[in-house]
Amino acid sequence: MSDALPEQGPPPASALDDFLPLIEQALDRAIVAEAGCPGVLTEAMRYALLAPGKRLRPALTLIACEACGGAVRDALPAAVAVEMVHAYSLVHDDLPAMDDDALRRGRPTCHIRFGEANAILAGDALLTRAFAVLAGEIGSPARASRSVAVLAAAAGSAALVGGQVDDLAAETDREHSVARLESIHRRKTGALFAASLELGGIAAAATESQLETLRQYAASLGLAFQVVDDLLDYLGDAGSLQKHAGKDAERGKLTYPGLLGVEGARSRAHDLITAAQDSAGLFDTAGWRLKWLADFVIQRIQ
Amino acid sequence: MSDALPEQGPPPASALDDFLPLIEQALDRAIVAEAGCPGVLTEAMRYALLAPGKRLRPALTLIACEACGGAVRDALPAAVAVEMVHAYSLVHDDLPAMDDDALRRGRPTCHIRFGEANAILAGDALLTRAFAVLAGEIGSPARASRSVAVLAAAAGSAALVGGQVDDLAAETDREHSVARLESIHRRKTGALFAASLELGGIAAAATESQLETLRQYAASLGLAFQVVDDLLDYLGDAGSLQKHAGKDAERGKLTYPGLLGVEGARSRAHDLITAAQDSAGLFDTAGWRLKWLADFVIQRIQ
Repeated sequence: MSDALPEQGPPPASALDDFLPLIEQALDRAIVAEAGCPGVLTEAMRYALLAPGKRLRPALTLIACEACGGAVRDALPAAVAVEMVHAYSLVHDDLPAMDDDALRRGRPTCHIRFGEANAILAGDALLTRAFAVLAGEIGSPARASRSVAVLAAAAGSAALVGGQVDDLAAETDREHSVARLESIHRRKTGALFAASLELGGIAAAATESQLETLRQYAASLGLAFQVVDDLLDYLGDAGSLQKHAGKDAERGKLTYPGLLGVEGARSRAHDLITAAQDSAGLFDTAGWRLKWLADFVIQRIQ
Repeated sequence: MSDALPEQGPPPASALDDFLPLIEQALDRAIVAEAGCPGVLTEAMRYALLAPGKRLRPALTLIACEACGGAVRDALPAAVAVEMVHAYSLVHDDLPAMDDDALRRGRPTCHIRFGEANAILAGDALLTRAFAVLAGEIGSPARASRSVAVLAAAAGSAALVGGQVDDLAAETDREHSVARLESIHRRKTGALFAASLELGGIAAAATESQLETLRQYAASLGLAFQVVDDLLDYLGDAGSLQKHAGKDAERGKLTYPGLLGVEGARSRAHDLITAAQDSAGLFDTAGWRLKWLADFVIQRIQ
């Protein structure tokens, strides 16, 4: 195994290089001091939203918009909204009652930095703001309300939140199967990936057929991303050949290498990436960044 | 002081009697078992949403729709959405990191019944579902996206969430003033009251002038409601003449009787109700339930 790319920060000289500054700028402008919002809340929301990250979900939104022939600028509100939902979910997942994490990417988690009550409330406020951004900043009411419906479904009880409930339950019960693991990831990671892409398509006034292709790409890429994340955790962040039980395994969490073995998981990731490449191919040259991203995901374990 | 009406349950033979069954039925149908949603999450969401309550906010939505000449049925999705936001806010407010309440209206709070993680997630899911309902069940995209914008603003960092942050901070710091208390209540209670009314107006395709009148009514009624709640807490739920420090006072929370005295608070409530009656009067006979509701609020302390 060659060196895996570091988990933190975007890859250098990538197909995302021209999108990432747009995203960072939009995120920075999305939360500012305002009348009625306590300073500590603004600070906690910014701390969570502007934390270092790959910005994968907002990038997916812009990439999908481009692939469907839209103007990338039109997809920026949706890009901000999906990152807000992602940031809120991390803040709540890290809480003592959930994963009880004190550090995320080397920084104190939101509740360590601002206290538990403020972290819960900052998460609530980010989730709420995501819908405010979609409803307030997308010019067309039809696209705005459709975007809200798509994001709310992906963030809701049958997707993001439901997946987290089952993920927590899986730590203590004994039903460990690939089907269950994929069901959790489809909801916890895949649904927001799919919504990120679909919102980009909606911003581009995509056809139903284009939206369906985006959902297929998302289903493959989302699971591949999770398999690769599990592998990197299992093998160690540096991509060391020496196998060791990572943090997830210590907790008794369901993981792909735990269920399929390292080679089985690697093979599953390759199959999923091939399927994602096939979907991306349907957009022809406009889908080049979708292809690049699938390559990027698999290269992390090559 | 005569007997105050009991806090729990709706008043008998009221102007709301024909609306309450509609609301209960809509709430009951709003959360059902669905693929991908763990059973415990459905159960926790229903436990929180269908808990006994006055249904004041959804009633305001239907009342406002009627006052603006709309069909009450068109306002039902918005009525459900505002009660979902209210229910989520109670679940999160009751958490150990916030008010740490084990009982609400005599029942175990959501985190006592389902565990803290599930309670946080059930709150998240209810908040998310509120926006799904608005975007998915309001036929007109223009009304749907406007409704999302109004509800997200009322539930967001400069209103509901910001008010809760300041309310928690007020327990430990020393800045106790009527201005601060009203600022907290305007955001914590008043904003969602106003949104509940405004969403009813939007469902009725109200004019901007009608919407403005609803907001004025809401500003008065919302504060009056809070003054009365503080008085009932201070005087004891049974409306006893014997003054005692209620639960809020024990916690060092800001309250109206604490700041203005009982007579000062009572007088403030009467002034606010008079203002609400004046606003309701602008709707002529169609606003009779708005007037009735203002009477009901003040009668609780008469």
